[in-house]
Amino acid sequence: MAEAVRDSPVPVPGFRFAGIAAGIKKNGNPDLALLAADGGAAIAGVYTKNRVIAAPVIVAKERARKGRARAVLVNSGCANACTGAPGLEAARRSCAAVAEALGCDAKEIVPASTGVIGALLPAEKIEAAAASLAAALSEGGAADFARAIMTTDQWPKVASTEAGAATVLGIAKGAGMIHPDLATTLAFVATDAAATPSQLRKVLASSVGATFNCISVDGDTSTNDTILLLASGRAKVTEKELEAAVRGVLGALGESIVRDGEGAKHVARIEVSGVANDAQARAIARTIATSPLVKTALHGRDANWGRILAAAGRAGVAFDPSRAEIRIEDEVIVRGGTPVGREAEERAAQHLRGARYTIGVSLGRGKGRAFYLTCDLGPDYVAVNANYRS
Amino acid sequence: MAEAVRDSPVPVPGFRFAGIAAGIKKNGNPDLALLAADGGAAIAGVYTKNRVIAAPVIVAKERARKGRARAVLVNSGCANACTGAPGLEAARRSCAAVAEALGCDAKEIVPASTGVIGALLPAEKIEAAAASLAAALSEGGAADFARAIMTTDQWPKVASTEAGAATVLGIAKGAGMIHPDLATTLAFVATDAAATPSQLRKVLASSVGATFNCISVDGDTSTNDTILLLASGRAKVTEKELEAAVRGVLGALGESIVRDGEGAKHVARIEVSGVANDAQARAIARTIATSPLVKTALHGRDANWGRILAAAGRAGVAFDPSRAEIRIEDEVIVRGGTPVGREAEERAAQHLRGARYTIGVSLGRGKGRAFYLTCDLGPDYVAVNANYRS
Repeated sequence: MAEAVRDSPVPVPGFRFAGIAAGIKKNGNPDLALLAADGGAAIAGVYTKNRVIAAPVIVAKERARKGRARAVLVNSGCANACTGAPGLEAARRSCAAVAEALGCDAKEIVPASTGVIGALLPAEKIEAAAASLAAALSEGGAADFARAIMTTDQWPKVASTEAGAATVLGIAKGAGMIHPDLATTLAFVATDAAATPSQLRKVLASSVGATFNCISVDGDTSTNDTILLLASGRAKVTEKELEAAVRGVLGALGESIVRDGEGAKHVARIEVSGVANDAQARAIARTIATSPLVKTALHGRDANWGRILAAAGRAGVAFDPSRAEIRIEDEVIVRGGTPVGREAEERAAQHLRGARYTIGVSLGRGKGRAFYLTCDLGPDYVAVNANYRS
Repeated sequence: MAEAVRDSPVPVPGFRFAGIAAGIKKNGNPDLALLAADGGAAIAGVYTKNRVIAAPVIVAKERARKGRARAVLVNSGCANACTGAPGLEAARRSCAAVAEALGCDAKEIVPASTGVIGALLPAEKIEAAAASLAAALSEGGAADFARAIMTTDQWPKVASTEAGAATVLGIAKGAGMIHPDLATTLAFVATDAAATPSQLRKVLASSVGATFNCISVDGDTSTNDTILLLASGRAKVTEKELEAAVRGVLGALGESIVRDGEGAKHVARIEVSGVANDAQARAIARTIATSPLVKTALHGRDANWGRILAAAGRAGVAFDPSRAEIRIEDEVIVRGGTPVGREAEERAAQHLRGARYTIGVSLGRGKGRAFYLTCDLGPDYVAVNANYRS
């Protein structure tokens, strides 16, 4: 079992962090972050599945594939996506400037970017800031790093725990609606565990499947989504210990991202069961979790099970509606496909006043189950997204 | 070619219409509508593809399948969905009461309902109102009918045209976001054309494919969606003439529904071309048309092509982003996958100030093309949907 997961940063032997303002964001907020593994680190990554891939992701995939890296360079304020050959050039030039400051090869620097799509990364600003960025590196700099990668985030997202003798520290950004959109998710996990790149890939794939892929942040959406796991190799742990810790850290980061959904007031866990298999349950959970009508009803604290059931009905999965049961926390509001009654709905609506609740949807006798985390959809989401570029 | 389509009702030989208040809606607004073909009519229908099907749809399918009907009974204020056996019983009892008032068999009455899901249709209110409803029937009653089937609609939706010697009159309701939701679409088209049920089915299928299925109102969403086409058989026309007229009427009704999107300020036509086939183009057009991030950007009159391109990229269709071209009306803002520049975007943003505009997305050299109509997503959508049941 994993140790408890904290939302505070801890030092991780072998890593230093920095976050500064380099003038990429117009408002002068921190926008440039660096994670450096001074002795190098094993690395594995998962990336967006979008057909439109940002320049930094193209460069990051190419470099992380080798399994070793010296540093991760992240900027906010500019996604450097849809920028063609000049975008690739800007990403590489930025890495080269930081490599020079660190005294390593440019190809050992893995880039990531988030922000507005279509704007070319201002490499000259990163070149100008590279020396100060490297000078700002410190073992306790994770909080600065976390702040510098924020875009529409309301708070920095950090999670840490132990994996046997090793420490695991995760830092993320993201505050989209989130799925089915392109709010970029970036997450970086550093550990002093000893692990090979292929072990890291395995640990990352299984951890992401059970965490970020269940929170409406599918990685198949933004042009820039990137999750990187780096290990400095100082502490001996079992793969199982490491997997539990990474999963715990990514789980906490993912929930923080959903809680920070643009304009969201609460987090709903949609649990689906009773269909033939897990994939079907997941399709239904996802359809419910991404339905604007369900999400606006949650915002209005309305136990509107009709929208939930209708969303389930259009997920493309066969089920018998007359077996459907829906509950909010422990309050059953639909049984046998029909409503239990107004009193039950009023009690259920009380649960919707909480910051976090579970909506259970049971559709029959099958063994398939899955969950999705989602958030409500309020007017603030529209305000944030209608004016994002201005 | 079809004649011009008007948004005003016209009498259709063989049909009478009525719309009254029967107390189903709490606010006392009209909520019960009747379309009567005094000499009977040939009928064809298309219905929701949701797994959760409302009671009136189950009854309507069963009855319209025979190809002949005497009347269509519609109520707003209650969807009678997820109401089990009592829901079916209420739908049948309501039809029976109206059949008695009309002097025909209950099975000749086709029901449709729209409103809140999960509430049982108050059949006793319809029984009490049946005689007045029948007494209110008149050849000029289409406007009353249109008002009585409204739910969140801001205006009644009527379209009429000629098909050779015949008249075609359509009446619809719907004002959802709309896709991917469950805002019910109801549409009823009456014509005095002479046509067999199988001709009507053919005409309806081809007309819906080119109209309602391209407006984010797919029929695979709500529990209650129903489109019925009735022909009283008095005027001789060719199938081709009839098809053009029905398509024109459904096209006008569909666009009116999108324009009336909950809280929407404008209608965008998303045209996709340059991929391998029409189905791929449709998948991309649909993904763009239903993206909350694209729709909120339109609300902010932001020519945010990055969100458009990223939405295209997650539609599951292969294309080369470096060939992508995006235009707003005639203003090209992306060419070769990269932005043309700020000035072009500013000119494009001017087009977004209009009530209706076209966004063209060309992705390569393929012959596939498709379009979708959509609307912007503003804070009013959230306000309407968060408080719909209260």
